[in-house]
This record gives sequence, C-alpha cells and structure tokens, in this order.
Amino acid sequence: MSPAAGPSLEDYAALLKPSDTKVLLLVLDGLGGLPLRPGGPTELEAARTPHLDELARRAEVGLHDPVGPGITPGSGPGHLALFGYDPLRYRIGRGVLEALGVDFPLQSRDIAARGNFCTVDGSGNVVDRRAGRIPTAEAERLAERLDAVKVPGAETFVRAVKEHRFLLVLRPEEPLDPDLGDTDPGRTGVPPLEVTAGASAAEPTAALVQAWLDAARQLIADEPRANMALLRGFSVLPDWPSFPEVFGMRAFAAAAYPMYRGVAKLVGMATQAVDEDPAALVEALRTAYAAHDFFFLHFKPPDKAGEDGDFDRKVAVIEEADGIVPGLLDAGPDVVLVTGDHSTPSLLRSHSWHPVPYLLDSPQGRGRGADAFGERECAAAGDAVRRGRDLLPLAVAAAGRFGKFGA
Amino acid sequence: MSPAAGPSLEDYAALLKPSDTKVLLLVLDGLGGLPLRPGGPTELEAARTPHLDELARRAEVGLHDPVGPGITPGSGPGHLALFGYDPLRYRIGRGVLEALGVDFPLQSRDIAARGNFCTVDGSGNVVDRRAGRIPTAEAERLAERLDAVKVPGAETFVRAVKEHRFLLVLRPEEPLDPDLGDTDPGRTGVPPLEVTAGASAAEPTAALVQAWLDAARQLIADEPRANMALLRGFSVLPDWPSFPEVFGMRAFAAAAYPMYRGVAKLVGMATQAVDEDPAALVEALRTAYAAHDFFFLHFKPPDKAGEDGDFDRKVAVIEEADGIVPGLLDAGPDVVLVTGDHSTPSLLRSHSWHPVPYLLDSPQGRGRGADAFGERECAAAGDAVRRGRDLLPLAVAAAGRFGKFGA
Repeated sequence: MSPAAGPSLEDYAALLKPSDTKVLLLVLDGLGGLPLRPGGPTELEAARTPHLDELARRAEVGLHDPVGPGITPGSGPGHLALFGYDPLRYRIGRGVLEALGVDFPLQSRDIAARGNFCTVDGSGNVVDRRAGRIPTAEAERLAERLDAVKVPGAETFVRAVKEHRFLLVLRPEEPLDPDLGDTDPGRTGVPPLEVTAGASAAEPTAALVQAWLDAARQLIADEPRANMALLRGFSVLPDWPSFPEVFGMRAFAAAAYPMYRGVAKLVGMATQAVDEDPAALVEALRTAYAAHDFFFLHFKPPDKAGEDGDFDRKVAVIEEADGIVPGLLDAGPDVVLVTGDHSTPSLLRSHSWHPVPYLLDSPQGRGRGADAFGERECAAAGDAVRRGRDLLPLAVAAAGRFGKFGA
Repeated sequence: MSPAAGPSLEDYAALLKPSDTKVLLLVLDGLGGLPLRPGGPTELEAARTPHLDELARRAEVGLHDPVGPGITPGSGPGHLALFGYDPLRYRIGRGVLEALGVDFPLQSRDIAARGNFCTVDGSGNVVDRRAGRIPTAEAERLAERLDAVKVPGAETFVRAVKEHRFLLVLRPEEPLDPDLGDTDPGRTGVPPLEVTAGASAAEPTAALVQAWLDAARQLIADEPRANMALLRGFSVLPDWPSFPEVFGMRAFAAAAYPMYRGVAKLVGMATQAVDEDPAALVEALRTAYAAHDFFFLHFKPPDKAGEDGDFDRKVAVIEEADGIVPGLLDAGPDVVLVTGDHSTPSLLRSHSWHPVPYLLDSPQGRGRGADAFGERECAAAGDAVRRGRDLLPLAVAAAGRFGKFGA
C-alpha cells in the first residue's frame, strides 16, 4: 500500500509561521451527486443555493477525489483527507472506527474489535454471518450480557452498535500487541476461524481473546439467532501527528454524530456534540470562535438523503445548509472551505467514487467566476481534480500560515 | 523518477466486489494530435466521427497524461498505464520489450537483451553504433548465423527485429541474475564496454554473456558493416500483480501487432491475433464476449499515419475506427473507455508528450455534453488532465466492481 505522493504532514509542519487568521471547513456529508437522467442536474445543481453560489463566484472552485481515482471513500478516510491526512497512509483500524462511532472513550492501551453476532448450527458452522440482522434492541440486550464476561488479565467492554454489529474493547493490565487475525471466516458453512497471532508477541493477546470468545459463546449458546460472535479489525488508537501541531491551529469540531467527532478527536481536535438542526452549527461556531483557529462543522443530512435515494430531500437539505452560510460568515473567518467527504448520489443510494465539488474562499484567491456551486460548474471553472488531502494545505496557505519552502 | 502518486494495485485489489459487468477498452494507438497550423483542427477534430461524438455527448471526457507531464511514452508504458499499472513503477526491461515485439516465447528464467549490430574499426573502436542501419533482410541473415553460437551453461537465441536491431535471449541451465551493465558505449570512437555485473551474484551471467560476445564477434568479424554487436537492457519477465486478480475481470486482448499482445500477456490477459481490418476487432469481441469481462481492443493505424506525417490518412483511419463503434456497442458492454496510449501528431511524425483525449461512457457518469470527441472538447468539458493509470480504476468503479475504502 503506497501513500500518495506529495508533501508529508511533517513537510507542512516545517512551514508554519505565526498568524491569527481563522479557517472554516464546512463539510456537507455526501455532497457530490449524479443526475437522475443524462443531461439533468445533480442534487447540488438542482438546489437553490444563493449564498454558496455567491461564494463560488469569487472563490476558487474545483473537484476533489477524496482518496483516489475510482475509490469510494468510507466516512473515516473521507474526513481524514479533508483534515489533510492522506487516507492511504493514515489508516484507521476497523475496531477503532467502531469505537469512534459509538463514542466509546478508548484509552491508549485498549484493543478494539468490530464484532458481528452470527448464527452457528449444531456442528458449529456459521449459517448466517449477521444473525438475520437482529434488531438493535436485541443486540443491546446481548451486549449487556457479554459486557459481564470476565477474562483474566484484562477488563472487557461490549457495546451494541446497530443491528448485528457490536464493539469489543479489551483493556489489558499490561500492554498487549493487537496483531490478531479476524475470526470472521467471511463465508458460511464453515466454523468461525481460530484466533491467530500475526506475530509471536501477540500470542498472549490471542489467548485472551480466545478465552473471551469461549466465555461469550457459552453465555449466548441458547439464543435462537445470535448464538455466536465473530470478531475482526483488532486495532488500537493510532499515534499520528496532531492536527494542531501540523497546521498550527487550535482546532474545533462540531458534529451531531459520534463518528465524525471521533475522527476529529483522533487527530487532536476539540469536539462538541450538536443536534441536527443546522443552526446549531452557527451557534457552536460563535461560541468556539475566540478560543480556536480552525473549525470543522459537519452536516450529515445530504448523505442520509442520498443513501435513502431521495433526490428531492437531498436538494432540500443542501438548501437548508445554504441558509446557514451567512451566519457562518458573520463570525468573520479569513478562509472558508465548503465541500463533501465523498459523493452520495441519490441515484446510487450509496457513497460513490465520483469527484466532489469544493469551494475555497479567501482574500487571495484566483476565482474564475463560476456561475454557481455545482459539479459541472466546479469542473468547468476548476483547476483540476485535486486529491482530497490537498485542500486543507491550500486553505492553510490561503490563511497566510505557511512560510516559504527553501530560500 | 519516482512512481506517481495514488493508490497501488494492491489497494485496488482490496476493494473488489463480485459483479458481472463488462468493460471495453478501445485503444486508438497514437490518437492525440496537433493542428497543422495554429487554430486549425487536430486529426481527431478534423475527422468525421459521429459515433464517437455521440458517446462523447453523454460520457465523461477529458485528457490524460499516459506517464506524466511532458513525458513521451513508448508503446509499452503507454499501454501499461491504460491497464492501470503506473509505468514509472512497473518498468519493462528493454530486452523483454524487444522479445514481446517479435513474439518470442520468453520463459521465466530467460534473460533477454536488445542488440544492435554495429561497425568497429581495426583497433576495435565503434565507428557506427547502427552499422549504417543495415536492411532488415541483412540483419535476418546475420541473426541466423548468431543463433548458432554455442556457449557453455545456456541455450542462446538470436532474432532479427528491424534494420540493425536484434534480440538476444539466454536460457541458462541454472537460474542466473540478470543484473548486467550495457555494452553499448552510447558514442563512437571508443570500444564496446566490457560486460560488467551490477552485483557479484551476476558475475556468472557476465562471464556467459562475454563468452557469447566473443564467439559472436569472431563469427561476423568479416562482415563489411555489421562486424560487431552491442547489447543493452538485460532483463527477465517481470513478476507483477496480474490484471485479472487486481481488477477482478477475466481479460481479453485483441491486437494485430505482437508488441501489444505481448504487453497484455505480461499482465495476464488472454490474447488473440487479429488482422488489421478494424472489423476484425468487432468479430474478436463477439467471440470472446461471453467468457471474459474486460476487452482490450488495439487499433494501430492512427499511430502509423502519425509517424508517417500523414495528417489526412490519420483522419481517415480515425474515421474507420469510428465506423466499428456501433458494432462494439452491440455486444452490450456496461462501461466503454476510448482513448489512445499516447499522442502521435502528424506534425511531429513521432510519439509526443501531449495529453490524450479519452471518453468514459457508463450508466453512472456525469457527462457534461461535449459537442464532439476531440482534444479541445475534452479539455473544455473534462474534469482535468488525469494520469493515464487512473482511467482504468475509474472504469472499474463505473462498472460497479469496487467496494468502499474504509467505513
């Protein structure tokens, strides 16, 4: 797996100079879209967005590939890219991502795994890897039972996530190597895989997880559907360069969903939970403004509408987001970056690989007068398809926070 | 040069999901061109191509740099890029390339080198590195003589290529290290270089090649022009990720020339020789359609016309290629990518570094209604200048064959 080329975070950190400018990143989740029929407008193009259009007329606009050409980003990688972290280099383990999603307060020694409740038959073979997608309430009841499992050498925690998904966290008394293989066989008709250590240093971890699995199995053996657990993505909190240090900004994140606050926290941002009303983002920005330099505001509804295949609702929530733009600008940020973490076209009802429109407004831009903020406008007036991870450095440069490279 | 940025083949392979979609790649060799006078049309712009224009109106279009900005690609790298392999990372040795070009059936242990017949004077200094560009027939006669050279420890094969060029293949009894320096001094007035090993493990190889050169020299010492041989580009078949495994498609290639089938074979495609009539490509596609998922169809004439400096003929053969488009679409591919492996402007009579137009037609595109398929249309309506190696992943994504990166 090769990181994308280009300057590293360390390269950027070396360029910092003092400045009191402020940078705003507004993420409209799943912003990019597709026309419902050839030649028709995308959701963003169909939306009436006078404030974003006004910004687009004076801003630099374009499209970005959040991870890489043809790659459909998950929410974690999409946001890391917008924070300037190449997602091909900075990878979040599946277990850690699950912990972020349910707001579990991971500690540095914790080992997190993503769990699935599954169904095994009398001979121990997996017959349904998702236990019939049991309702979340049922998973919560089971998670509570499993949370009580005791194994020697570690505390363990189990949290229900959604339907058949759960989070397992091991908090060992001594530091342990998390290098374990998945127990999810990835198919039915075979037993779950044994817990295997990827290196001999991880053998104590494997023994501990096996002990947990044996106890868990006994505890839920009498369940009609969810009578076994599969584990994958064993991982620990990554040790990455911190955003405030790399980009020299005290960073603040406001988001309604734990996952996005979690990714922001991973890179060292202060976080605040807000409710889903977009006006809450304006309020959060105002409150946090004096004490921070960088503001990541997350707005989820466009992604949800796209995943539901609801073109009209996606249009409507984009228009709602447009409505808070004047309130955000009132705070007075020097640089404003508006974009999405990936495309979620209603047509596809899912995240997609299509490049995402962005606008970058600053006093020193080379705006080319796009008529509006939209995919085709951004392509026509844009520089190029940028890598997602390149936008933040452009914003920081526009904020006057980078000195010269070399003399 | 360092490999270009972006996801690796392994990154893409990790995203595969099952699908029964079909992807067609039509390569019009040397497609990109230049106007004969400022403001005039390029060959593609001048050509009447109603079927390609119709595709361009609904497709995503743009330009690509096959290898990198300002880099004029050879045929091997240009095609590797279109197969998704970064040509800066995946390099074909000169010797192997020569073997592909003459359809020599290389085996895994074979060491191939590109040879030049040259002229040396009485004191052994090279006076003409190309032996006056002897006719191919003369090279064939000489190659036949050299093919009979015997050295201990290896079979050897010599094949004439064109004019002064030939292919040498060593088939050693035991595996040998191919890390040898060139014997071509790159200039006249000095003797050929000694065969040198790049590492001590290659010393037996160097001794063997020196023995072959000594024998070859004796055999042709009495020739008036081609009285010595220079060798370069010692190389073996590369061990690369296979296209069918990386992109999850059973791949088929049809081409009239051995070089293009050879490059396709290198990455694991099934290949079929066809004659130069473009209708043969339609027939090959029909026959191979059911048993494959990816189809690389190679059409050579635009490149040949460009190399001949024949603008009008290049226009005419592009129009011929346009004529087979309906027949290709009849097969029913889900995704269609039409482009060139590089530009060959008639004005320059050679390959060039100019970006190459492409169109990518799929059900989920963001077509922007280019008026026609042409360089300036593609630039105006296009996303950006893409790297050549990024097009195939975009096509595979459009074919619904990649899952999400991260959660």
